[in-house]
Amino acid sequence: MTDATPAAEAPSAATNVSHQARPHPGGPSGRLSALLDEGSAAELLAVNLAAQAGDFLRGLPAVDLNTLRRVGALLRTFESLLDPGWSRELREELSRLGALLGQERAYGRRLTRLLAGLDSLTSTDPRAGAATAPAVLAAGPSTAGPVPRPREAEGLLARHPGAPKARALLERQLTLGRSRAHTAALQELGSARFHALADRMTLLVSDLPLRAGADDTPSESLLACAAAEAAALAAAAEALPLERTAVAYNGDCLHDPGDDQPWHQVHGMVRRTQYALELCAPLMGRQAGPPLAALTELGRILGRHRDAAEAAEAAALAALTPRITPATGYVLGVVHADQRLEVEAARHAFSTTWPDLYRSGWLTEAWLTTR
Amino acid sequence: MTDATPAAEAPSAATNVSHQARPHPGGPSGRLSALLDEGSAAELLAVNLAAQAGDFLRGLPAVDLNTLRRVGALLRTFESLLDPGWSRELREELSRLGALLGQERAYGRRLTRLLAGLDSLTSTDPRAGAATAPAVLAAGPSTAGPVPRPREAEGLLARHPGAPKARALLERQLTLGRSRAHTAALQELGSARFHALADRMTLLVSDLPLRAGADDTPSESLLACAAAEAAALAAAAEALPLERTAVAYNGDCLHDPGDDQPWHQVHGMVRRTQYALELCAPLMGRQAGPPLAALTELGRILGRHRDAAEAAEAAALAALTPRITPATGYVLGVVHADQRLEVEAARHAFSTTWPDLYRSGWLTEAWLTTR
Repeated sequence: MTDATPAAEAPSAATNVSHQARPHPGGPSGRLSALLDEGSAAELLAVNLAAQAGDFLRGLPAVDLNTLRRVGALLRTFESLLDPGWSRELREELSRLGALLGQERAYGRRLTRLLAGLDSLTSTDPRAGAATAPAVLAAGPSTAGPVPRPREAEGLLARHPGAPKARALLERQLTLGRSRAHTAALQELGSARFHALADRMTLLVSDLPLRAGADDTPSESLLACAAAEAAALAAAAEALPLERTAVAYNGDCLHDPGDDQPWHQVHGMVRRTQYALELCAPLMGRQAGPPLAALTELGRILGRHRDAAEAAEAAALAALTPRITPATGYVLGVVHADQRLEVEAARHAFSTTWPDLYRSGWLTEAWLTTR
Repeated sequence: MTDATPAAEAPSAATNVSHQARPHPGGPSGRLSALLDEGSAAELLAVNLAAQAGDFLRGLPAVDLNTLRRVGALLRTFESLLDPGWSRELREELSRLGALLGQERAYGRRLTRLLAGLDSLTSTDPRAGAATAPAVLAAGPSTAGPVPRPREAEGLLARHPGAPKARALLERQLTLGRSRAHTAALQELGSARFHALADRMTLLVSDLPLRAGADDTPSESLLACAAAEAAALAAAAEALPLERTAVAYNGDCLHDPGDDQPWHQVHGMVRRTQYALELCAPLMGRQAGPPLAALTELGRILGRHRDAAEAAEAAALAALTPRITPATGYVLGVVHADQRLEVEAARHAFSTTWPDLYRSGWLTEAWLTTR
């Protein structure tokens, strides 16, 4: 939502609250080293959330969805330290706003992905083919870059008569969806509900509402919360059909696409674990580095999984448009299959990347014993 | 062509020549051990070709295409020992007949493959889905079996309104093609040209026309011919884009299908090398085992490559039928992509299987020094 222009009232409200964004002179980072010595979990959490909320408020009128998502994730992971009613309500509001404002960006991602895919599928120009071919996911993290292609690359749908109409149809439908999402976002940013959310974020900056007795918990309790998040991730990921998806060309993409939802859920858990680990990093020193790098890579892979799954759905939806030509339908069938193939490739990449992190023991063992 | 019923004249011609199919009492195998001691290349070749030609003639009126192909391959590999004009003409006739009679079987393969693929893509019944899902090629020879699927497997096109029409269209077009090929095969089997070929095969049984001076070449010259075939295979396979296809999910199937022809050519060379090695096996003892097993596996992989490429072409062709519905077009697009994905999977399997054989040195080094 970085390109959203909010309705008239939003900027004034934003200006209003952003004055309160730096309540602690010297900024959060100045207090960090002192906090690490003092060892209060609540204070370390407060400093971190205050920094995020400050970023959010200073960013207004534009809304940084990444910050929104990160605050929501931290509120959830460290819920046991926070005022339960307050944190649950704020999380629900953040989640609702994130979903609403995320629509415009999601339509944009689908549009970009489908047009790039179609351009590559129809490429006849050697240079254009090499340039627009999507970066294909490879078997493992070490080879996850784009596969080098010869210059004479020519797509399966090169010169296919249905391609221009299919491209125009996808562009029209997704641009329309994006426009509608943009309008809805503008309305939201001008609403009283959004102003109320901004006020809640202000409270986060100045005075984090803690659960009774959380004031004097030691900083190790942050590690315990993060470890619980990591353990939940480990359990959810191990429940995925990784044995099957680790086999390249397992045919799932078309013959057994299954449910994308468990993968999306693991994606959310990967990110929550990553944010929690980032928050705890000052307590862990250098040892946070390897699991953080692995989680970032897994998050990137599952982001591609989500993007491809959404794009596949959009292609299938476009194929249901009445009165399209058979050639257009045919091209959309190939485009749909192409995106589902990227879903399979992403699952395969996850299945071959995940075991390293899991077997390292970081997610389930090393958290509480390391400092 | 095992189910072809030849025209009226063919059986009598066949009966006529098949009386000559066993010129050597005791059969070829009885002479083999003696030959190995005597060490004449020409005689070992003659015994082997006589056995093949005998099989062919005894099989009439049905034509065993595998024997046809094998005789043609051996004539080519060991050309330097044979009368050049005679062997070239017979090879050309065998090749022409094989292509003509192979059509019916090829249409049948395409039909079976496309209907099985479509049934799996549209599967909603848990049991049916598990039963009809095609055996998907996996990354390496050790995991090349079918991937286990959960019983709730449901295809991407389950309950799609275009599926029944697409299925009927494919079935109609390929059954028609097969019927036409059957008619052409029947005509061929009744032709004077086919009778002339049967006569040539009879000569192969009784009196192999050798090149001048080939009579007393030592049996090692067979190894030299086979080694030349193997070296040609090694060169052709190494010229394939194996570095790229060895990366799983490289995207070639749709974004850069390239030319199937070099892969088909390597398929032919794999088979010729296999047949040559089988002929030379008595000279090599146990050491022929590992390369023969590897060649059989590579031939199997490239057979799937050919089948999937041909089926993909048939699906694309069906999509060009006038007045189909957009939904039918869409389904055929997915089916086309599905088959091209199997082409990519087969190339990947070849790329990960081939290096073991190549690095073993068998194809380029061990032939002439081992006995």
